[in-house]
Amino acid sequence: MDMQTNLLDRLFDAGLLIDTGVDGLYGRSGAFEDVIARFEALIARHAPEATAEVIRFPPGMNRAHFEGSGYMKSFPQLAGTVHSFCGCELDHVNLLQCMAEGDDWTGKQEATDVVLTPAACYPLYPTIAKRGPLPEGGGLFDLQSYCFRHEPSKDPARMQLFRMREFVRIGTPDDVMAFRSDWMERGSTLVSAVGLDVELDTANDPFFGRAGKMLGNNQREQKLKFELLIPVTSATTKTACLSFNYHQDHFGQTWGLKTVNGETAHTACVGFGLERIALALFARHGLDTADWPEPVRKALWG
Amino acid sequence: MDMQTNLLDRLFDAGLLIDTGVDGLYGRSGAFEDVIARFEALIARHAPEATAEVIRFPPGMNRAHFEGSGYMKSFPQLAGTVHSFCGCELDHVNLLQCMAEGDDWTGKQEATDVVLTPAACYPLYPTIAKRGPLPEGGGLFDLQSYCFRHEPSKDPARMQLFRMREFVRIGTPDDVMAFRSDWMERGSTLVSAVGLDVELDTANDPFFGRAGKMLGNNQREQKLKFELLIPVTSATTKTACLSFNYHQDHFGQTWGLKTVNGETAHTACVGFGLERIALALFARHGLDTADWPEPVRKALWG
Repeated sequence: MDMQTNLLDRLFDAGLLIDTGVDGLYGRSGAFEDVIARFEALIARHAPEATAEVIRFPPGMNRAHFEGSGYMKSFPQLAGTVHSFCGCELDHVNLLQCMAEGDDWTGKQEATDVVLTPAACYPLYPTIAKRGPLPEGGGLFDLQSYCFRHEPSKDPARMQLFRMREFVRIGTPDDVMAFRSDWMERGSTLVSAVGLDVELDTANDPFFGRAGKMLGNNQREQKLKFELLIPVTSATTKTACLSFNYHQDHFGQTWGLKTVNGETAHTACVGFGLERIALALFARHGLDTADWPEPVRKALWG
Repeated sequence: MDMQTNLLDRLFDAGLLIDTGVDGLYGRSGAFEDVIARFEALIARHAPEATAEVIRFPPGMNRAHFEGSGYMKSFPQLAGTVHSFCGCELDHVNLLQCMAEGDDWTGKQEATDVVLTPAACYPLYPTIAKRGPLPEGGGLFDLQSYCFRHEPSKDPARMQLFRMREFVRIGTPDDVMAFRSDWMERGSTLVSAVGLDVELDTANDPFFGRAGKMLGNNQREQKLKFELLIPVTSATTKTACLSFNYHQDHFGQTWGLKTVNGETAHTACVGFGLERIALALFARHGLDTADWPEPVRKALWG
């Protein structure tokens, strides 16, 4: 049995994750949730982002904004659009008959205006652009939401629905690069404080298809993406638990984000994969939080 | 301008809710989220449910479980199925061309195994049934999740994505009826403690179509559903902020839930519409929480 399945089965047996019958779609126990809540409180204590504007978007976003973001160009395979039944009573009778016969009933569902949020920051950019030019000093935002990625897997660190905590900086290239390099240091400190081994490396997003390979190589060469890798299911193949992304002026151009001087804004973000961090903690320190090393317990529970 | 739009606009202007361009799909400010967090803490202090098993499901559930629940019979218009692109690179080229031309690109999305959770307790019943017969005394569960209902509206109390906190009791008819009547009292006490006027009334779910009218009447006559009504957008047309539901053996039969004696279990739940409660508080006490009456502030912030 490979290590991924092994950890997943151990989490199921301990009741920390709850099998729903779909790979990558799990219930969480109170103990699992408590670890995430405590780690988020730890993030808050390490963040100088007390001045950040807190926004919490729901797990779905405006489809028009999603379409405008270019996500379907890069990651069509991961997105989840939300569809509903929009028929009359006769259509409903036919639908129920179709379901009763075990046929595929989903083909007649129609797309709604909602798409599942692919990353916590996607709904932010069009929202901020609508406010007009940024104030002096740019913007700093604190986000968290459930995100969806259609990649069913037995790897517990690759869930279809998971939470991402993000800080996003919008401003001049210098501002956003300084923000990102600060967070690369702070992120390592924070994760070390809970007894996890960290390794920072350049990375690339999983762009779709052969053309996507080039985009990925380009991203890596330009050092646009760094990841903090932590052992979760394997000591050798580590898992990206934090990522530090410099988008250059991609979102600025896409949404018309302007600095106070009227220049196209640059953006950067740091993202915490909250379930992945919790999994790394359980994998490293054991499945019962009462048995975790004292310094780790102190860092999380005070 | 009607009162619903009026409250929504005031919430937008105050930055408590953030317009995303889709009716019923809003960002929340830190202040809005804090009210929800504090109210959830208040629920915990009023609940004798310290022994409840805490489970947090993500905002999506197993499609097979959703299909088995019978939801599409009763509320087909409200459900949201999640669809993804499953094509090859050539399909992707065609998809992008379709999007570039402004045509409908969503028709080729294929249904995944995930459906958005319509009520926090829907993923629970098949999960508990899988464990086998309930222990002596039955089961008691503490749930919270984002739920989706496809009903775009300018009424801020009718969001497409909103959070529901639920306690669910599974056991004998006597057990679950006692649980429900306890909560009808406790819910009123709890809501009165934050300075809101409450009114308890029988209610029915929005069953689809003409046949659904009969189901609704039946539900009302049998007093299977009660709601705690609180003024939000209107003093006369109040909004259901808590609901108290007795499902009889519907979920027990559907999923094969058994008591320790091998009888089909009955179920009941109390559900808190967390956004609705926050909206009721803002509508009643004003948009700045610092100005709320001292007893209300004390109940929430201690």
